Amino acid sequence: MANITKKVSWSSRADESGATGEGTPLLNGSGDPLFDRQLSGGSVFQVGRLSTVDLEEEISAEEDSLRGRLKEIPHNEKLLSLKFESLDYDNIENQLFLEEERRMSYMGFRCLEISRWVVCGLIGFLTGLIACFIDIVVEELAGIKYRVVKENIEKFTEVGGLSLSLILWVVLNCTFVMVGAIIVACFEPIAAGSGIPQIKCYLNGVKIPRVVRLKTLVVKVGGVICSVVGGLAVGKEGPMIHSGAVVAAGVSQGRSTSLKKDFKMFEYFRRDTEKRDFVSAGAAAGVSAAFGAPVGGVLFSLEEGASFWNQMLTWRIFFASMISTFTLNFFLSIYNNNPGDLSNPGLINFGRFESDSVAYNFYEIPLFIIMGAIGGLLGALFNKLNYWLTIFRIRYVHRPCLQVIEAMLVAAVTTTVSFAMIYFSDDCQPLGPDHTEDYPLQLFCADGEYNSMATAFFNTPERSVRSLFHNQPGTYNPLTLSLFTVTYFFLACWTYGLTVSAGVFIPSLLIGAAWGRLFGILLASITATGSIWADPGKYALIGAAAQLGGIVRMTLSLTVIIMEATGNVTYGLPIMLVLMTAKIVGDYFVEGLYDVHIKLQSVPFLHWDAPATSHWLTAREVMSAPVTSFSRIEKVGTIVDVLSNTSTNHNGFPVVIQDADGDEPSKLCGLILRSQLIVLLKHKVFVELARSRLTLRKLQLKDFRDAYPRFPPIQSIHVSQDERECMMDLTEFMNATPYTVPQDTSLPRVFKLFRALGLRHLVVVDNANRVVGLVTRKDLARYHLGKHGLEELQLAQT
Amino acid sequence: MANITKKVSWSSRADESGATGEGTPLLNGSGDPLFDRQLSGGSVFQVGRLSTVDLEEEISAEEDSLRGRLKEIPHNEKLLSLKFESLDYDNIENQLFLEEERRMSYMGFRCLEISRWVVCGLIGFLTGLIACFIDIVVEELAGIKYRVVKENIEKFTEVGGLSLSLILWVVLNCTFVMVGAIIVACFEPIAAGSGIPQIKCYLNGVKIPRVVRLKTLVVKVGGVICSVVGGLAVGKEGPMIHSGAVVAAGVSQGRSTSLKKDFKMFEYFRRDTEKRDFVSAGAAAGVSAAFGAPVGGVLFSLEEGASFWNQMLTWRIFFASMISTFTLNFFLSIYNNNPGDLSNPGLINFGRFESDSVAYNFYEIPLFIIMGAIGGLLGALFNKLNYWLTIFRIRYVHRPCLQVIEAMLVAAVTTTVSFAMIYFSDDCQPLGPDHTEDYPLQLFCADGEYNSMATAFFNTPERSVRSLFHNQPGTYNPLTLSLFTVTYFFLACWTYGLTVSAGVFIPSLLIGAAWGRLFGILLASITATGSIWADPGKYALIGAAAQLGGIVRMTLSLTVIIMEATGNVTYGLPIMLVLMTAKIVGDYFVEGLYDVHIKLQSVPFLHWDAPATSHWLTAREVMSAPVTSFSRIEKVGTIVDVLSNTSTNHNGFPVVIQDADGDEPSKLCGLILRSQLIVLLKHKVFVELARSRLTLRKLQLKDFRDAYPRFPPIQSIHVSQDERECMMDLTEFMNATPYTVPQDTSLPRVFKLFRALGLRHLVVVDNANRVVGLVTRKDLARYHLGKHGLEELQLAQT
Repeated sequence: MANITKKVSWSSRADESGATGEGTPLLNGSGDPLFDRQLSGGSVFQVGRLSTVDLEEEISAEEDSLRGRLKEIPHNEKLLSLKFESLDYDNIENQLFLEEERRMSYMGFRCLEISRWVVCGLIGFLTGLIACFIDIVVEELAGIKYRVVKENIEKFTEVGGLSLSLILWVVLNCTFVMVGAIIVACFEPIAAGSGIPQIKCYLNGVKIPRVVRLKTLVVKVGGVICSVVGGLAVGKEGPMIHSGAVVAAGVSQGRSTSLKKDFKMFEYFRRDTEKRDFVSAGAAAGVSAAFGAPVGGVLFSLEEGASFWNQMLTWRIFFASMISTFTLNFFLSIYNNNPGDLSNPGLINFGRFESDSVAYNFYEIPLFIIMGAIGGLLGALFNKLNYWLTIFRIRYVHRPCLQVIEAMLVAAVTTTVSFAMIYFSDDCQPLGPDHTEDYPLQLFCADGEYNSMATAFFNTPERSVRSLFHNQPGTYNPLTLSLFTVTYFFLACWTYGLTVSAGVFIPSLLIGAAWGRLFGILLASITATGSIWADPGKYALIGAAAQLGGIVRMTLSLTVIIMEATGNVTYGLPIMLVLMTAKIVGDYFVEGLYDVHIKLQSVPFLHWDAPATSHWLTAREVMSAPVTSFSRIEKVGTIVDVLSNTSTNHNGFPVVIQDADGDEPSKLCGLILRSQLIVLLKHKVFVELARSRLTLRKLQLKDFRDAYPRFPPIQSIHVSQDERECMMDLTEFMNATPYTVPQDTSLPRVFKLFRALGLRHLVVVDNANRVVGLVTRKDLARYHLGKHGLEELQLAQT
Repeated sequence: MANITKKVSWSSRADESGATGEGTPLLNGSGDPLFDRQLSGGSVFQVGRLSTVDLEEEISAEEDSLRGRLKEIPHNEKLLSLKFESLDYDNIENQLFLEEERRMSYMGFRCLEISRWVVCGLIGFLTGLIACFIDIVVEELAGIKYRVVKENIEKFTEVGGLSLSLILWVVLNCTFVMVGAIIVACFEPIAAGSGIPQIKCYLNGVKIPRVVRLKTLVVKVGGVICSVVGGLAVGKEGPMIHSGAVVAAGVSQGRSTSLKKDFKMFEYFRRDTEKRDFVSAGAAAGVSAAFGAPVGGVLFSLEEGASFWNQMLTWRIFFASMISTFTLNFFLSIYNNNPGDLSNPGLINFGRFESDSVAYNFYEIPLFIIMGAIGGLLGALFNKLNYWLTIFRIRYVHRPCLQVIEAMLVAAVTTTVSFAMIYFSDDCQPLGPDHTEDYPLQLFCADGEYNSMATAFFNTPERSVRSLFHNQPGTYNPLTLSLFTVTYFFLACWTYGLTVSAGVFIPSLLIGAAWGRLFGILLASITATGSIWADPGKYALIGAAAQLGGIVRMTLSLTVIIMEATGNVTYGLPIMLVLMTAKIVGDYFVEGLYDVHIKLQSVPFLHWDAPATSHWLTAREVMSAPVTSFSRIEKVGTIVDVLSNTSTNHNGFPVVIQDADGDEPSKLCGLILRSQLIVLLKHKVFVELARSRLTLRKLQLKDFRDAYPRFPPIQSIHVSQDERECMMDLTEFMNATPYTVPQDTSLPRVFKLFRALGLRHLVVVDNANRVVGLVTRKDLARYHLGKHGLEELQLAQT
């Protein structure tokens, strides 16, 4: 009945001993597959270990840190990891589901719709609150830090011994960063980085373990505060997107599994389909709060996540974004003692670009395009350097203690470099009457002047960006800017990928603004003064856009985000052009930063279309076969055996009707998931028991929802020897109408169906509706367009 | 073999004699279905007539006007017309297609991608040019007209006899409108109105005959110029969207069927899938040119059209939008003798809202929401009135001459009312030194003053909107505004739906701006002067948004369009809130204006989701059955008979393999379209001929593309009696892997598959892969959520 598959299954994960699944090419080119098969199939220990597969949510922190210490993670972008599961964005339309839907009245659906709006409002509100919290805490802590250091420097400037100030500064920064790195490395490694790659994957349909858990949120928020206050070359905007997504995943489920608290609300939303929609809204709310860009948020969510575009969903996402920026604005206006003021819609505010002062003209557009190309080149360089660095880190810096030490090292170097540059800079600027600098540092400058280099470093990055955009021409001298650009470029590149939670948006903007301003100054010095090119602020803006575009390679959403953050639509067109150019130039060399990191994690990420030249592949070649399938009425023992089989670890099982002779493959009549079978086994829904105990409560959809999303492992379910002989009737629980494709369907066609509907399993049938194979995410994701045409990634159980 | 369906087929259309198809409920509740069946089935004449079904593109203008004169179009929103065909957004993956794709190298795909970008660039450029042309011609003609009338009025103001001026004005306006109405009514009725409902339907997948033809574009452009110059309460923005779509459909095909010119370019794009993508881009380019809103254009295209969202496509759409606004801006800047100036990105320019002068505060938000509700109410009233009016028009005003007369009547009334209001108004305002009025009319005012009412009427509507937004407080008195609002409301409502090509955006904005400004003035008069409420301009903006939102019910795209048109993102949040409120309030009463008109046309429009309470319906109940199907190797005579059968007029035919006994339904092995069969018949691809003439050129994909989209009717293909006995091998041409669903699939699931993939035919199979039915657009579109739960629309052949 259960044909053991010969291919590797989708959902298995690596065990600690580094054994790979059968048929999996070994990671570093060595090793004998046969040996590996024995290893993974034969050891009793591994049966237990490997089969936690489905349940990574359950793996305890100790195991994690154990794995963290032992693993020698291989990295190879030609690999596709099997450890990631897929999310199922297709409703499981079994009888229970249909009965529930049919019972529901029109008013019921109205109420559901209203509660969706309520949930989105809540998501927006909470995301805004979190953004507000981060902002205020960072402002306060950074303020204290800068004041302390500034006083200290001022004290020692005259008496000598500035090295003591340096040490104070380094110690302060390292302490903050250490705290930030420790909580991330030890408690929740998934909270590292900006979180955008993870959210991209989640929205794409890949289940990244623990990515939307409360603990992740707490660590993320704490971590980002520490790393920003610790003076790293990071921003607090990227993490907001992750935070929004976590909030959304939490609020929409009406309970917290971590806190073991069920509010008995929103139970209807406890499935992947609904949860994904809310997570999109949360990500959008995060963008919206980060940049004050509600429309940009919606577009981000769509550009990164959506496949099937639904108008109502888009409006809800829009609503969440709106509420989020509104909440942030409201609370920040109170914090700034200016209630009712609406000038703080986001964490970063680019300041107002008044169109009269910084108008541009047609003949500047070629200049902008050149800047776009520069941004693309610099972005590609950034990504390439970061790629090598990440490989190095994966190989050698994978223990928490090493990670914390690296983070502290970066903090120390950042601080020292900053200090050195301030120290050796002689760029003194007069202190204007309406100076925008909060902590002007006099240092060796004359009275009434301040050190301009210090402004760039001695400030939160957000403020530095703003002063690069808006300070009067002449505020910075070219040397300061060039030095700053180069230093900050390498620092930011080193910093991204550290085990701290931090974003790359602001550093990119800062680098770009610096060289953009430099570009503007040089331009103005070449041409006559007083011309339209005189204001370097606008070149700073274009440079910032170019650099950011060159690194992250977003176009549409980023254009809108920058437009909204500058509060000016006149720059829409040049920003678009610049971002497009940056993307085209950058893509020639290397992918976007997030995609680089996704690839390094070997995530089975599905792009928008199948590779262009893949029409010669058909479902028959792509699918996994033979497939383990069950009969409609199946023996409990068989089910338990299949579920416990560690060498396959399938998640979806076609249900078939056997032909009379039972010889040939059988006709498909449904599809059932591992998670459903586990719930059935747990509740002992056996035919015999139902007969004997007539009063047995009928299993309801609620039972499945209660178990979502952390279904218990098969090992935790005790099935006695007697029970193994019972039969289970799957008819009521299976999805009776799974999507199918004929075996001759071309890959692009399979891909389109799979991607458009967000499927997890697609059954391949022959012309008599007999199951011949199963297509899952990894089968599609492994084909990609390389430099030498279509390439097939190898599957690895890492 | 060919089971004649008992249900009405999808693609039949009404014949002139008013006979309806069998089984179709009669339109006005009378008549005997049996009698009708005899009529349509029995008459030889009708065989010929009815079977032009598929080929409405071919129906000559004479026939059209004949039909126009004879038809008594029934209207009933409980009907679903069968005359509309569906577009097929699923690639026909037959062997020819796959072979071509497989032959193509990676570089080939790159080139294709580049040519897609080139086409999008061209679309943007041409759309921008057209917008520019319309704008300049309208400006010039309207300028001449206003100058003539103004001089005349000034002449007669002192000597008396202003009635002569009125007559002059009326005659001028009526002449323009008459020309506009004649070209629309006589040459291309589809060019009437804004074209947005038609483009919505096209993007939704409904083939609206002649909607994207060159002739339509010419008539549209000429018509909109005439109606705007003729002083009707219309805008030239809506038609731009239609124009952009036509440009896109033309350019992307690399040929013009009307001009019989084939440039042999872009042949790859000659299919529905590719064409649809370009039409989306064209519509976006149109919005972009109309409002100077490239991002808004992209969102409009997505909100109205897209189902499966593809990143690359979105970027191309964005590119087209960008080029379009850029082109318009460039040429307008030359026209305005200010080359290089970038302040004219769109046909309408709301003028710059400087944020300092018109800031808003939190406590104004409830006021904005109230305005949104007012906009929703007024919008619902507008739509309801227009609905009744449209029904009246469908019933009684369907002859071209009547339509032209009505248009002229409206023009005359509009002019007379305007004149009367100007005449009786005593709202004199001082003529400022920097007056924005181009044609200030002194009339009975003192010297140095002008008649304020005249400004509102005696101007192109775009300028009126701008002056309502930006004129100093006190420019208009409340009475003028109220009178203007009421008059313009009814005039605009009467005008929309006339047989002239014209949009409803600008009139809506104008009405809204007028009452919004009134609202602001009243507010300022209640509260202390000098407060933040003193500037009525911002209330004019909010009112305009509310009114427009209340009428058209767009939210996301409209927010962005208004944001981009005002050049200010600060108002994003209140505009969103206002649009949301207007939509919620308005939807309570009646649908949006475009949806009302789509419904009145009984178009089988598919919404985003299936009705919520439709889970109890399954594919078995929804599908059309039995299905006419062919064998893989089929007799030519059978095919010709089926295609000529006027009572079915199917467009898609499952291809089946007969079982040995041939008794039970047969196994599905492919799907073939009427259009393909026609091409096959035309090229006489018969098995016998292939054997006898070995040198016969093999049929290529090119042959199908050359025939696209106007496939000849079956009657035009001569098949001799001998040839009828030949066999045709469909294997190579059929789509061997059509999407299928099991018969128990619930309606929402069928709907989702159909909608997400943009299908035209979906085969319903039993569990042995035997064909049991076919789901087409009309089967899904006829279920909708009415006031009493799920309702089923009746199918009508109108």
